[in-house]
Amino acid sequence: MSIITLTTDFGNQDHYVACMKGVILGINDEAVIVDLCHEVPPYDIKYAAMLLDAAYDYFPPGTIHIVVVDPGVGSSRKPLVVAGKKYFWVAPDNGVLSLALAREGQASVVEADNAHFFLSGMSATFHGRDIFAPLAAWLSKGIDYRQMGPIVESYSRMSFPEARLVEGKIQGEIIHVDRFGNLISNIGRNLWEQARARWGSDFRLKIGQLEIRKLVNHYAQAGALGEICALFGSSGRLELAINQGQADKILSLDMGQPLEISFA
Amino acid sequence: MSIITLTTDFGNQDHYVACMKGVILGINDEAVIVDLCHEVPPYDIKYAAMLLDAAYDYFPPGTIHIVVVDPGVGSSRKPLVVAGKKYFWVAPDNGVLSLALAREGQASVVEADNAHFFLSGMSATFHGRDIFAPLAAWLSKGIDYRQMGPIVESYSRMSFPEARLVEGKIQGEIIHVDRFGNLISNIGRNLWEQARARWGSDFRLKIGQLEIRKLVNHYAQAGALGEICALFGSSGRLELAINQGQADKILSLDMGQPLEISFA
Amino acid sequence: MSIITLTTDFGNQDHYVACMKGVILGINDEAVIVDLCHEVPPYDIKYAAMLLDAAYDYFPPGTIHIVVVDPGVGSSRKPLVVAGKKYFWVAPDNGVLSLALAREGQASVVEADNAHFFLSGMSATFHGRDIFAPLAAWLSKGIDYRQMGPIVESYSRMSFPEARLVEGKIQGEIIHVDRFGNLISNIGRNLWEQARARWGSDFRLKIGQLEIRKLVNHYAQAGALGEICALFGSSGRLELAINQGQADKILSLDMGQPLEISFA
Repeated sequence: MSIITLTTDFGNQDHYVACMKGVILGINDEAVIVDLCHEVPPYDIKYAAMLLDAAYDYFPPGTIHIVVVDPGVGSSRKPLVVAGKKYFWVAPDNGVLSLALAREGQASVVEADNAHFFLSGMSATFHGRDIFAPLAAWLSKGIDYRQMGPIVESYSRMSFPEARLVEGKIQGEIIHVDRFGNLISNIGRNLWEQARARWGSDFRLKIGQLEIRKLVNHYAQAGALGEICALFGSSGRLELAINQGQADKILSLDMGQPLEISFA
Repeated sequence: MSIITLTTDFGNQDHYVACMKGVILGINDEAVIVDLCHEVPPYDIKYAAMLLDAAYDYFPPGTIHIVVVDPGVGSSRKPLVVAGKKYFWVAPDNGVLSLALAREGQASVVEADNAHFFLSGMSATFHGRDIFAPLAAWLSKGIDYRQMGPIVESYSRMSFPEARLVEGKIQGEIIHVDRFGNLISNIGRNLWEQARARWGSDFRLKIGQLEIRKLVNHYAQAGALGEICALFGSSGRLELAINQGQADKILSLDMGQPLEISFA
Repeated sequence: MSIITLTTDFGNQDHYVACMKGVILGINDEAVIVDLCHEVPPYDIKYAAMLLDAAYDYFPPGTIHIVVVDPGVGSSRKPLVVAGKKYFWVAPDNGVLSLALAREGQASVVEADNAHFFLSGMSATFHGRDIFAPLAAWLSKGIDYRQMGPIVESYSRMSFPEARLVEGKIQGEIIHVDRFGNLISNIGRNLWEQARARWGSDFRLKIGQLEIRKLVNHYAQAGALGEICALFGSSGRLELAINQGQADKILSLDMGQPLEISFA
């Protein structure tokens, strides 16, 4: 129970991430700290929610996931400690855990108000260091999360654009663009299979000016270098990619771009 | 005594940081290595000095801090090993430890010249790998720093712009711009409290074209998104920020910008 | 035998690296994972091969090096597990290990096809997470690499531009530009010594419009700030640098640029 992951919008040019690690190791010098991502765009709660959702359950049971994308730091938003079936989360109550907790199902949520588990001499602007890091470190030492504050029934959820089936069509949108320029949509494999079961396997995928009529299994199957392809990627979501190229730049498409799949 | 932090200007695109870690683990495979920062701008000793100062004492006692921002690598500048009350530092003698050691007070400084603790087959251009990493690793194994070279009384110090009280005013400047575009000054809380004790609580803060007449406690308190605010940040320094915005870009201000607080 | 390094083109903005670490720790929670580099330019197998070559043997014997720069992911290219005299490598069979294995000499190569050591529910687009990470983790648990698939005699090699001696000259080229803008060539110290033994110590180095007639030992020896110098760098290769400046930008030179050293 001693792995702690960090997801923040702190970047790598400052001392912020290091301070969090120092605080954690000061409480539990056996904690294994893993950077999930620090390049979340500043204040982008949705981006963090999606990364966390894509990665959290590849970690072993007992892992504690800290998320600090926290535009409301110092205000009345509460720090949460969440105990799920296999994982813990420590994050501000701003919806950043929405996707992970929706997938996790049952989870017990505490509003952490017990300053005994905070850093002394706390600031109003860096709760990553002063609240979230120490809470996670104490969890990793085996402290029961219920000592950290009262259990609450409600907490902030955030709505994400969901793909849907409408009259022979799947309507979705691009929700993430990765480092390779792959355009990742919110269309999951289940929805795709449902649509095919109802309306058959012939389809036309339209996005921007582009029309695609077949899926491939992997990028190299796209054929020649520079060829555009559509496939289900490693998170089980439909994505558009260009074999060894940057689809986002070449197609001039970005997050929020709608796509539609019409079945014959 | 087995945590080692790394602060360098090596960036993340090369193999330099990894080589240092390999060398450390080759000497002490139980060392816990933490990246403090590798995005120090190339050769920027002051930037490194400030980051180190802002982070070093969040680590547990016994932590060994390596700093390698070393434009004089291979020249006559000496490698230092410093033993403070609670921490060790390993760095070139170029002033990069000035701020941390000024705050630390008493410390014992060794000019490390005992090649027994260097990597064999040493280069003249990568002392991070060949000298600083092995020195830190040997310290983490419990080797007495006094075996590494003679104790010296003097070492390089660097002067940093200090804020000061002048005729009803605090005069300071911006010394760091963080990832969020927050403009962090050299005005600490002590100086602020001294000024208020002398001249009262009414003030006008002027920076560039801007005038501010109150402080907030945290960013969200600034009010609407995009609102400018001034506050004491997590390092105890006065900073200017924009609620969920990039103050440096929006205000076109940068490091070195003077600011002045006039009291009633 | 529990250090695992990661070299990828995944960057730091996504969840890809974290997923690999989660999978490794799920199999061996005592593995020590070190980032060698994640900023390999997308799909740039040669860049990864060079970084790996420059760093791998600074790690202690038994270290397992994973390399995932894998434009052919999901296609027929095989995953390799290689056991050398002191290190293991886990990588796609696309030539990315060429330089390291050429230097290592004898090594035993397995085409890993035993899905017992893969992640269940494998994707076709993220073998870093589904194949390479688990293979390395199992190696770190002491599993014999020969259980992972059949030993093969041949595997992909990639050719790299080699410097050569021609009629009183060394002809080489720039093969890496580092963070500091240092232009690193493929001319090693051995070749240089051979040339001098044959043709004497007088030389003219020409690159672009530039001519240089002496070597220095380290950057500061170049003299004034902004001065151009040539020296043998920390990887034992001839490089061009500017004292505290960015040689690549100031000289407008880049990878692939030829350079020639004429003797007397």
